[in-house]
Amino acid sequence: MRLRMESFIKEEQQRIVRALEELDGTRFRTDTWARSNGGGGISCVLQDGTVFEKAGVNISIVHGSLPRPAIAKMRVNHPALDPTLESLDFFAAGLSLVLHPHNPMAPTVHLNYRYFETTNSDGSPAAWWFGGGTDLTPSYLFDEDAMHFHRTIKTACDSHDPNYYPRFKSWCDKYFFLPHRGEGRGVGGIFFDDLDASTANTDKERLFAFVQSCLRSFLPSYLPIIQRRKDMPFTDKEKQWQQLRRGRYVEFNLVHDRGTSFGLSTPDARVESILMSLPLTARWQYMHEPEKGSREERLVQVLKEPVEWV
Amino acid sequence: MRLRMESFIKEEQQRIVRALEELDGTRFRTDTWARSNGGGGISCVLQDGTVFEKAGVNISIVHGSLPRPAIAKMRVNHPALDPTLESLDFFAAGLSLVLHPHNPMAPTVHLNYRYFETTNSDGSPAAWWFGGGTDLTPSYLFDEDAMHFHRTIKTACDSHDPNYYPRFKSWCDKYFFLPHRGEGRGVGGIFFDDLDASTANTDKERLFAFVQSCLRSFLPSYLPIIQRRKDMPFTDKEKQWQQLRRGRYVEFNLVHDRGTSFGLSTPDARVESILMSLPLTARWQYMHEPEKGSREERLVQVLKEPVEWV
Repeated sequence: MRLRMESFIKEEQQRIVRALEELDGTRFRTDTWARSNGGGGISCVLQDGTVFEKAGVNISIVHGSLPRPAIAKMRVNHPALDPTLESLDFFAAGLSLVLHPHNPMAPTVHLNYRYFETTNSDGSPAAWWFGGGTDLTPSYLFDEDAMHFHRTIKTACDSHDPNYYPRFKSWCDKYFFLPHRGEGRGVGGIFFDDLDASTANTDKERLFAFVQSCLRSFLPSYLPIIQRRKDMPFTDKEKQWQQLRRGRYVEFNLVHDRGTSFGLSTPDARVESILMSLPLTARWQYMHEPEKGSREERLVQVLKEPVEWV
Repeated sequence: MRLRMESFIKEEQQRIVRALEELDGTRFRTDTWARSNGGGGISCVLQDGTVFEKAGVNISIVHGSLPRPAIAKMRVNHPALDPTLESLDFFAAGLSLVLHPHNPMAPTVHLNYRYFETTNSDGSPAAWWFGGGTDLTPSYLFDEDAMHFHRTIKTACDSHDPNYYPRFKSWCDKYFFLPHRGEGRGVGGIFFDDLDASTANTDKERLFAFVQSCLRSFLPSYLPIIQRRKDMPFTDKEKQWQQLRRGRYVEFNLVHDRGTSFGLSTPDARVESILMSLPLTARWQYMHEPEKGSREERLVQVLKEPVEWV
């Protein structure tokens, strides 16, 4: 599975990068990097393009030994992990992607799919799981965009298990939530973690096929949206609202996101690849309140009460 | 002590706000707020002024009951706290201040002094301590500014105990440090926490006098600096470097700062007052590297290896 996941995400990275380069008319910068402790990755980043303010498509295939603080973070979701372990051998392969467009009418999108294994001290596999998901974060809400995004993902999920979409949609709403703001990060999508034979009630082969379908549905889920929004007219005030929403994105990623927090506590991690998810620019304004009856206010209402888009 | 600390920080807030209004030529907005669980505060914020992009001077006097997650955060520094407690009554009074100037030659400054008490279930005092400090975060380093800032603080400390400045200066360097970047947030100042009769080897009265001296030394430590930097010429590139440094400020506050993290996990906290420390605008650029031999590079070198400024 290690090699198959690795070659799958490498192909998908190429395919996605090529499609986005065609859309933007700008080439991605590619950095291949190695961790001194084992493994490495390929980061593709486009900055200040025509369509995208910042776009990152990153894969990493890393293995090594997790120190105690990282195990403690992982134990939150894997209570079976032995808390007295001083370290734990692991393998992780994943693709993650964040696209922040310039145009405030065009939504930010995030995606991440990963395969994880832990190993006993004798080298035998201890546990394995898949995790990931994708979610959409508009500054201005177009219902048809949210519906198209969710419908495309739902189709990918339904071909594997009709319970997946409802289960992972509501997991996504719960996960991408800022408790201190009482709002979701965006209009959701799907999210799942620790999916193994028992939690998904299936086998590894079928789960891999499911993750493949999810990742392959990304371009069809997002390209039609960005194509219809990237050249829409907008005002300075709308740009500023986008910047405030980007501030919320930063808050979520730095305060709550498990992946970011796990990454930053992994020794020898590549910080530039972890934080490539942050927007190029963001804004925090004291006591900003959207006007009554405005589109900005409607967005906030939807973020406070998640909608069933399909 | 509760009432004396409260009236002291109220007076100081007034004094500082008046001095900054005079400097900026803009009035602060004042919000008085109450927590439903007990206590409240006064937030004074100036946004998009002449000198300051964002300036917040906040006091809060709160009491209530800490829930388990907040106790867990506090236990990091108070191992004596009973981990099985479901809740803990507390009183806290403090002043905090963050000033982000427009001009990239003018440094950001932060200050916070607070008095904390915990109470047994019968209402008797369980523990008390003072905490706080102040630190300077330049985007462009002027040695004379860092020296003036540290010298002023050292004078305030030395009149109480000659060990305070060296001890709290190095505590500050350790605390305001971003491990994932391997850099300090700025050029430091002083920081201390959990200062009580035993850890400070003195009594409550003398500690209060020390905290008063520290807070009163703020205007003399910062005003001469902002006065000589606020109107300096700068380029777009220098403004952009400031924006990148503001991004680091956000990283520290959201990922590492104990006060922010404690605040965000306190139920019914006033989020706008906690996050008023964030700059109005910030930037994250993938793989930005300062040019060899530039002033930007020198700053980063100093942030990697703290300097003894006095």
